[in-house]
Amino acid sequence: MFSEAESDPSLSKERFKAQEVRLRTALLQAQYALLQRADRSLLIVVAGIDGAGKGDTINLLNEWMDPRHIRTLAYGEPTPEAAQRPPLWRYWNELPPRGRIGIVFGSWYAPLLAEAGRKHPRERRIEEGIAQARRFEAQLAANGVQLIKLWYHLSRDAQAVRVERLSANPATAWQVAPVDRKVNRRFGRIRDAAKRVLSQTDAPHAPWEVVPSADDPLRTVRTAEAVLRALRRRAAPRVARVHTSPPSGRLRIPDLLAGLDYGARVEKDAYEDQLAQLQSRLALAVRTPAFDQRSLVLVFEGQDAAGKGGAIRRVTHALDARQFDILPIAAPAPHELARPHLWRFWRNVPAQGRIAIFDRSWYGRVLVERVERLAAPAEWRRAYGEINDFEAQLSANGAIVVKFWLAVTPDVQLERFREREASPFKNFKITPDDWRNRKKWKAYADAANEMIARTSTAAAPWRLVAANDKRHARLQVLRYVVEALEAHA
Amino acid sequence: MFSEAESDPSLSKERFKAQEVRLRTALLQAQYALLQRADRSLLIVVAGIDGAGKGDTINLLNEWMDPRHIRTLAYGEPTPEAAQRPPLWRYWNELPPRGRIGIVFGSWYAPLLAEAGRKHPRERRIEEGIAQARRFEAQLAANGVQLIKLWYHLSRDAQAVRVERLSANPATAWQVAPVDRKVNRRFGRIRDAAKRVLSQTDAPHAPWEVVPSADDPLRTVRTAEAVLRALRRRAAPRVARVHTSPPSGRLRIPDLLAGLDYGARVEKDAYEDQLAQLQSRLALAVRTPAFDQRSLVLVFEGQDAAGKGGAIRRVTHALDARQFDILPIAAPAPHELARPHLWRFWRNVPAQGRIAIFDRSWYGRVLVERVERLAAPAEWRRAYGEINDFEAQLSANGAIVVKFWLAVTPDVQLERFREREASPFKNFKITPDDWRNRKKWKAYADAANEMIARTSTAAAPWRLVAANDKRHARLQVLRYVVEALEAHA
Repeated sequence: MFSEAESDPSLSKERFKAQEVRLRTALLQAQYALLQRADRSLLIVVAGIDGAGKGDTINLLNEWMDPRHIRTLAYGEPTPEAAQRPPLWRYWNELPPRGRIGIVFGSWYAPLLAEAGRKHPRERRIEEGIAQARRFEAQLAANGVQLIKLWYHLSRDAQAVRVERLSANPATAWQVAPVDRKVNRRFGRIRDAAKRVLSQTDAPHAPWEVVPSADDPLRTVRTAEAVLRALRRRAAPRVARVHTSPPSGRLRIPDLLAGLDYGARVEKDAYEDQLAQLQSRLALAVRTPAFDQRSLVLVFEGQDAAGKGGAIRRVTHALDARQFDILPIAAPAPHELARPHLWRFWRNVPAQGRIAIFDRSWYGRVLVERVERLAAPAEWRRAYGEINDFEAQLSANGAIVVKFWLAVTPDVQLERFREREASPFKNFKITPDDWRNRKKWKAYADAANEMIARTSTAAAPWRLVAANDKRHARLQVLRYVVEALEAHA
Repeated sequence: MFSEAESDPSLSKERFKAQEVRLRTALLQAQYALLQRADRSLLIVVAGIDGAGKGDTINLLNEWMDPRHIRTLAYGEPTPEAAQRPPLWRYWNELPPRGRIGIVFGSWYAPLLAEAGRKHPRERRIEEGIAQARRFEAQLAANGVQLIKLWYHLSRDAQAVRVERLSANPATAWQVAPVDRKVNRRFGRIRDAAKRVLSQTDAPHAPWEVVPSADDPLRTVRTAEAVLRALRRRAAPRVARVHTSPPSGRLRIPDLLAGLDYGARVEKDAYEDQLAQLQSRLALAVRTPAFDQRSLVLVFEGQDAAGKGGAIRRVTHALDARQFDILPIAAPAPHELARPHLWRFWRNVPAQGRIAIFDRSWYGRVLVERVERLAAPAEWRRAYGEINDFEAQLSANGAIVVKFWLAVTPDVQLERFREREASPFKNFKITPDDWRNRKKWKAYADAANEMIARTSTAAAPWRLVAANDKRHARLQVLRYVVEALEAHA
């Protein structure tokens, strides 16, 4: 894997000059083709031996291509805001829109390579890191983010010579970081770690390319060629299935919605009583010191007029306005459509100690987008695994995730639609869309049942709430929220 | 100002019921009118005596209007990311787009009222806080953000009774915050502080309305009426001029661009030498502990083909990729056009210890938008003051702001245009727009001269760089950056 790079090949100045015009022209053309088609973006992951000159890659690519459409995304130690969220949050957050190029320094491979290069690496962390990188990249590739990963490599001796040469000259000494000097002693370990990580994360949709780096002209040409190959790849290659949970094949989908007790009712006095008690418990549960290390993610889905808004207000009534965000989810805006569908939700992942309430959510992908054919079957089928992976990351980071399906029966929905139409201040809640959706009751119910079957996990369970009686539904929602919080206190 | 509210008026349940339908219907209609016209947004600032029930306002407005188009923006102590930026950053950051409503809790008045309510208030801070609030609100109002500010008020006794009543019931005791109990003792001081701050920040485009709060039905009705009035205000009332710097009237505009020494040249050897030295000094200057408390904002403007990109790369070559962001500024996207023009720049204000490099900038408002008539004369004229205010806030927060105008003469531009057209990898840099702009040379030069005259401040100076010789220009840019950094070390 590294044998060519460690032979430290070079390129004469003349041969470099001969290639430069061709490469620059081709790179630019390919970049403009990307911009114009705008059906995908390109992420260039830059990694490699410290002191191999990978930092020069930014300037090179910005000089050879049109820098107005390139964004350098360089990550060091996590900032406080990043430290309070899942590790991949910061990468999700800055994904370039379609048509654009992102250059990623300090990628998700940085902690993984650091772990693998330790004297006593922790196997489980490495395995998990590799699996997570594979899932992340598969999801990006499937959603229009092309990937190319560059590993800058050279021999141990050439690395030492390079660092020495830069250090000796006062004008270039600042380019040498302390870590560059340590590489030599640990070269063997770094090399073995890279070999393992690279070989296990190489994929047709996210290939690694080793760039020989001892010689500046050759490093430049090889970088350009690798980026060019990535830009020219026709379509996203078939992404290997890496989502293993849930079984994406056949599954018996039980009609859980049909099995709910729609007759459940709560009388007014009992309601007022229990409501106050539950709100009081909720208020306490989010004010414990333990909650400072956690966060709460509530998802509200359900048929139209099932009472999501009312249930949400009974929850927020017990909360401090500074602690929560209500996020009403509508159709995606153009800059959101230009990224993978989970992007806009990743951006709203709450920090520790905070609460995010989604009024509709990422489940739109497998509900409205499925039923209304806004997403292709391959897209919404893939989304179950993508969503489970997303929620698993939230949960692993300390988030308590509870998802509600508020269920009404068709007759109650009809009653509420009519009531809404008759009310001067509720008729805004009813639109021709609602009547259209109602005609597709069965299709939506099937989609909901399948969604519940495929995305109800221990870490992020669906809570089905019979909502023909609003009081009953509101208490149930509060009870589930309070129980989830108290279980994690 | 508070006499009505301190008489603790109330409304009977019957009279409330009689008004409810009318108010809810009117509020909804007004909200939908706002959504459909989409030429402005509404910010509802909620403040008042603690324990006056202002928290209920969120639930009320979300219940009475369509909550999908309302965003609650509640602020407590600044988060780490906010603490590293100017105080108004977090409010700018989350401005709702046109058509939408934002409810602001913990607004820019919170620190101001806290200061004014101290036993020994620091006069200068209060004066500055008031002036800043006035400037901020004038800018918002002039840019399509309607404002209404609600002050929830009640008598000292009624406040105590209300807190007592909530505390006595275990089911509502959680609603009482420790601060609510302290109000009574300090009532007089809080009241006087509010009186001063409110009277000095009341403006036709951002009025304060005092809401009597001892009685729930009356508080509800008055809140609804105030919001309704704000929604119904026809157009933004004439915004009083509050930007006093620079003098917005007549000013002799010197032709500074004409006075540059365009013949300045640097030979290759001297260039290489000085370049390495300056990059080395730059590398050191941004790695000092002092810089951790500062940030660097570089703005690059200039004629087409003046060499902005090349100059930027000579700067970034000395920087760690993890420390800077290059922000190429193009025409605003739809979600950016839906906010005040400085919004997208506020969002990219660097945290402490970081560097933001703008390749074109907020000055587009007074350059291309002025010359191409994309902004009305009132808009671009107003922008000088808005920009000075923005940069003053950056600087007051520790940012070192340096703005470059790279200047070439028409003949050199022509030469570079032709050279670009002839080069297979540079012709992307030349578009029909460039030739069109070139024909408006005089108009752009006039705009640039006026911009320089009106926005060159001690805190954020313009540096005019003769750029007919690229080497000379690059060294000049580096020298100005290094000197600015070293002066603040």
